[in-house]
Amino acid sequence: MDTATYPGSDFFAVWAPAPEEVRLRVGVEDSAVYPMAKRAGDWWVCSEPGVTKEPGLRYGFELLIDGEWSPTFPDPRTRAQPDGIHGLSEVVTEDFAWTDEAWTGRTLESMVIYELHVGTFTPEGTFDAVIDKLDHLSDLGVTALELMPVNPFGGERNWGYDGVDWLAVQHSYGGPEGLKRLVDACHNRGIAVILDVVYNHFGPDGNYNGLYGPYTAGGSTGWGETVNLSNHQSDEVRAYVLDSVRQWLGEFHIDGLRLDAVHSYDDRGAYSIMEQMRAVADDVQGRTGIPKTLIAESDLNDPRLLTDRAGGGYGLDGQWVDDIHHALHTLVSGEDHAYYEDFGSLEVLLKALREGWFFTGTYSSYRGRTHGREINKEHVPAWKLVTYTTTHDQTGNRAAGDRPSMNLSPEQQVLKAAVIYCSPFTPMLFMGEEFGATTPFPFFCSHTDEHLNEATREGRRREFAHSGWDDHEVPDPASEATYSSAKLDWNFDADQQRILEGYTTLLRLRRELQLARPDLRELTVDGGGDEMAPWLAMGNDEHLLLANLSGRTAHVPYGGQLVYSFTDPQVGDEATELAPWEFALVKRS
Amino acid sequence: MDTATYPGSDFFAVWAPAPEEVRLRVGVEDSAVYPMAKRAGDWWVCSEPGVTKEPGLRYGFELLIDGEWSPTFPDPRTRAQPDGIHGLSEVVTEDFAWTDEAWTGRTLESMVIYELHVGTFTPEGTFDAVIDKLDHLSDLGVTALELMPVNPFGGERNWGYDGVDWLAVQHSYGGPEGLKRLVDACHNRGIAVILDVVYNHFGPDGNYNGLYGPYTAGGSTGWGETVNLSNHQSDEVRAYVLDSVRQWLGEFHIDGLRLDAVHSYDDRGAYSIMEQMRAVADDVQGRTGIPKTLIAESDLNDPRLLTDRAGGGYGLDGQWVDDIHHALHTLVSGEDHAYYEDFGSLEVLLKALREGWFFTGTYSSYRGRTHGREINKEHVPAWKLVTYTTTHDQTGNRAAGDRPSMNLSPEQQVLKAAVIYCSPFTPMLFMGEEFGATTPFPFFCSHTDEHLNEATREGRRREFAHSGWDDHEVPDPASEATYSSAKLDWNFDADQQRILEGYTTLLRLRRELQLARPDLRELTVDGGGDEMAPWLAMGNDEHLLLANLSGRTAHVPYGGQLVYSFTDPQVGDEATELAPWEFALVKRS
Repeated sequence: MDTATYPGSDFFAVWAPAPEEVRLRVGVEDSAVYPMAKRAGDWWVCSEPGVTKEPGLRYGFELLIDGEWSPTFPDPRTRAQPDGIHGLSEVVTEDFAWTDEAWTGRTLESMVIYELHVGTFTPEGTFDAVIDKLDHLSDLGVTALELMPVNPFGGERNWGYDGVDWLAVQHSYGGPEGLKRLVDACHNRGIAVILDVVYNHFGPDGNYNGLYGPYTAGGSTGWGETVNLSNHQSDEVRAYVLDSVRQWLGEFHIDGLRLDAVHSYDDRGAYSIMEQMRAVADDVQGRTGIPKTLIAESDLNDPRLLTDRAGGGYGLDGQWVDDIHHALHTLVSGEDHAYYEDFGSLEVLLKALREGWFFTGTYSSYRGRTHGREINKEHVPAWKLVTYTTTHDQTGNRAAGDRPSMNLSPEQQVLKAAVIYCSPFTPMLFMGEEFGATTPFPFFCSHTDEHLNEATREGRRREFAHSGWDDHEVPDPASEATYSSAKLDWNFDADQQRILEGYTTLLRLRRELQLARPDLRELTVDGGGDEMAPWLAMGNDEHLLLANLSGRTAHVPYGGQLVYSFTDPQVGDEATELAPWEFALVKRS
Repeated sequence: MDTATYPGSDFFAVWAPAPEEVRLRVGVEDSAVYPMAKRAGDWWVCSEPGVTKEPGLRYGFELLIDGEWSPTFPDPRTRAQPDGIHGLSEVVTEDFAWTDEAWTGRTLESMVIYELHVGTFTPEGTFDAVIDKLDHLSDLGVTALELMPVNPFGGERNWGYDGVDWLAVQHSYGGPEGLKRLVDACHNRGIAVILDVVYNHFGPDGNYNGLYGPYTAGGSTGWGETVNLSNHQSDEVRAYVLDSVRQWLGEFHIDGLRLDAVHSYDDRGAYSIMEQMRAVADDVQGRTGIPKTLIAESDLNDPRLLTDRAGGGYGLDGQWVDDIHHALHTLVSGEDHAYYEDFGSLEVLLKALREGWFFTGTYSSYRGRTHGREINKEHVPAWKLVTYTTTHDQTGNRAAGDRPSMNLSPEQQVLKAAVIYCSPFTPMLFMGEEFGATTPFPFFCSHTDEHLNEATREGRRREFAHSGWDDHEVPDPASEATYSSAKLDWNFDADQQRILEGYTTLLRLRRELQLARPDLRELTVDGGGDEMAPWLAMGNDEHLLLANLSGRTAHVPYGGQLVYSFTDPQVGDEATELAPWEFALVKRS
């Protein structure tokens, strides 16, 4: 069955096995209705003379269900929704005046990733406003932007994970043209662009897909209906996913995708959809000569994702590693609730740094079962593991959405950054952490259906009540004020300026001193001290990071020549004394 | 967490995270109750002086749930249930007077497998009665028995897939001692024993496990509750599976396991339970020096199951291949209902024989989606694929349970056998097919809960009503008469004697002429003729099977010297004329 025929054609077509009949409506006022005929594979096609997909045309489909015509619904494969997720779709040209001919791309190995949410990164909340901040990011040492999902959502405020239209771009951010302008601008500054894409569920608001056909598998991931990747008629749903991958990596010049929650893919066939995404990425890479990177968010600790396809793996380039975050966060913050319960000791951090993650077939109290599998260090280089001191999730999935920077001293913040940036893992920042932003990043949404907002509100309150929070301490996700509170404040105070300098220096030294050079087999990881004053030593044969992960003085049996510290440590030839939360990057003697 | 401590100990212990308290009851009359104490990992242990697991002791556990003591339940890890699945458990010795010291085992590559159901194979329906038929099976050329599941079930009549007690043996078959006697007798005749084991669901009758702890994952496979292999507290459930694997392969001297419906394992972790089974099998194999074989029933067409663990696979030895059965069955029977709809043409059979299975990423109308993945012929030898002209399922999952032999002529039956036995795939027979048994093999059960019998009855009627069967044409699964009808009749008529001779000759020639020699890369598979008279040529550089898969005369452009036929074909040097449903095994000229 050729699923690729209709989506790329210049006539109107839609896959719709469910309804008895489908008809096309074109135009906003004085709209006209055209019949559609069912062709092979349950594709409905409009072959009226003169009715073709001209850019700018507004259209939708009407479905005959149980003998009654539905209202006009958007196209499941819409590329633009100027009036929001419930409105008419718009035909969008692929043309764009690209100026990034000089861009040769960037592999994950050379990336310093900066995760941002377009709506709250700037006061304007647009792709164009992001362009204005690229000098700041270049100066910081960032080499790749990672945009939280940009698919259309209900209202004007959403993290992005409630999307339904996987080929379209949120209108208020600047739509498809705006996204292309941002990618073009990034490439002209040597910055790659990664896009966060959600293929495990459909958002609850504006999900008309089920009326067209079996897009969903009957269950829920907790965030929305599970996508049908394995059941009856799943081929066309998989084709939709893969066409989306191809559109971003091809037409939009996107350099990489961050695959949201791949552990929630309901994918039970002999070919993983991740392998098939990698095949599409390989194809685009082959045609353009530009590296195309796939990074999973995975709660599986399964090295199969990172193993190449010839070795029985899925061939992804990288994945996020929460274990290293959790190990570092718990040690510095002292927190131990929920999924942090398995962490909080130096031993856990040491193992995570040595092995790439902590759970390698290891019992997890939080999960109540053995979890994960060891990484084959010969086949998986350290740069495949993306690490961070925080992410949108680790900040926003807290009751108040309080950032680490709202609870930690500047010394503690830069200490955590030092551990990540002096490691061989690929570093990622979450927007604003580089200057210790004190704006929170709470969960927010603006569903068009008030019941959904209420359900989200109740869900969050219930979730955090388990951890002892009162309702009034959990911001209302649907309120405009919650969204506004998340907007970054770009006026830095003196502490914030110091933190920014610390981050900038660390990222520069990482690059200049090739701190990421060792692979996992060559990495030195040592630690000691008592439970109240643990210390860490990590690095290669040239440089070591010595870090005091406690509020007491630490005596570290490594020394050398001080290269950089955020403070003023006493570094000797053979030993170093570190004040509370102090670190020293040293050249080994 | 060490899960291996308690099951092997000589004191009474049970894993029971669910109840508030657990107590032990020992003895039938004058029974005594002993307290149990909760230890690490939610194991309850009885450490009363003198209360140890003496063989022959009858016992059970009582659970305090919501402040009330339950009745006495059997041990989830019971090794014998003399009074049935609801009764007291019995402590069983591991001792047995084995006489199979000379047995050096048998790998799948050299097996001719004979699948049988202990209850209906003989009038007596016992392990001991199977022993009486071993001469018949040896004469036929069988080298491995495959026993349908022998775990205890409700009543005296069951296919075996409704078991709950994975370490125990049905009492009416002869219990654990009886099974060991059969294995011992087989080994002394050079016959291996494979046991069918069900780890994907728990049967509906006598499943007390949920009262002890989270043995199930909350869903249903359609046959019973899905086993908890991935969720909270799944480690102990996995340990139960693996201990069962170890018990059969170790203590019971079983040579191999047939893993029922592995596609229904709810196994989402980084280590497949199949890999872990293979590791247990490797361990027993290493300690005993006897090959231990794992064969999957898999509806995935995923070569990962058969790929070795170093190559990213699960390292199983083999799997059943329904595709070849379906391709052959539909061509000879003309049937095309339900899952046969994708089959029925010569092209499908040729592809299945060439590639090892038909669905290699191929669209399936029945499934409504693309299915399977191609086999790497370099890494997967043909003998890993187990093929057959019928199985218990292909017979019994028909409305009336009618065997192919009840609908086909002797010529057609032996023709199908010739295709299987002249192939490089591992052959399997279903009991009675070797003499064209005319007894049916309908589904039967005798649940102790009449509601379950009624649900099963209704379920079967509903299932077959789709295919146009009237209720009265579907035998009542719970009736004694249905069970009796399935008992093999060992008095052969002349046709049956002829069929048996055909089967015996084919299996002898397979062995003597090494017809299984080629791997998939070297196999010759050709075919032709028009749609009404397709023919097949298959073999190696020495011998070819020429088969007429139609009721018309076929002209086959291959010839040679006739080695064997069930009939009297006209074999020339360059061409062969085959009468309807005729075949010729020829030595190539």
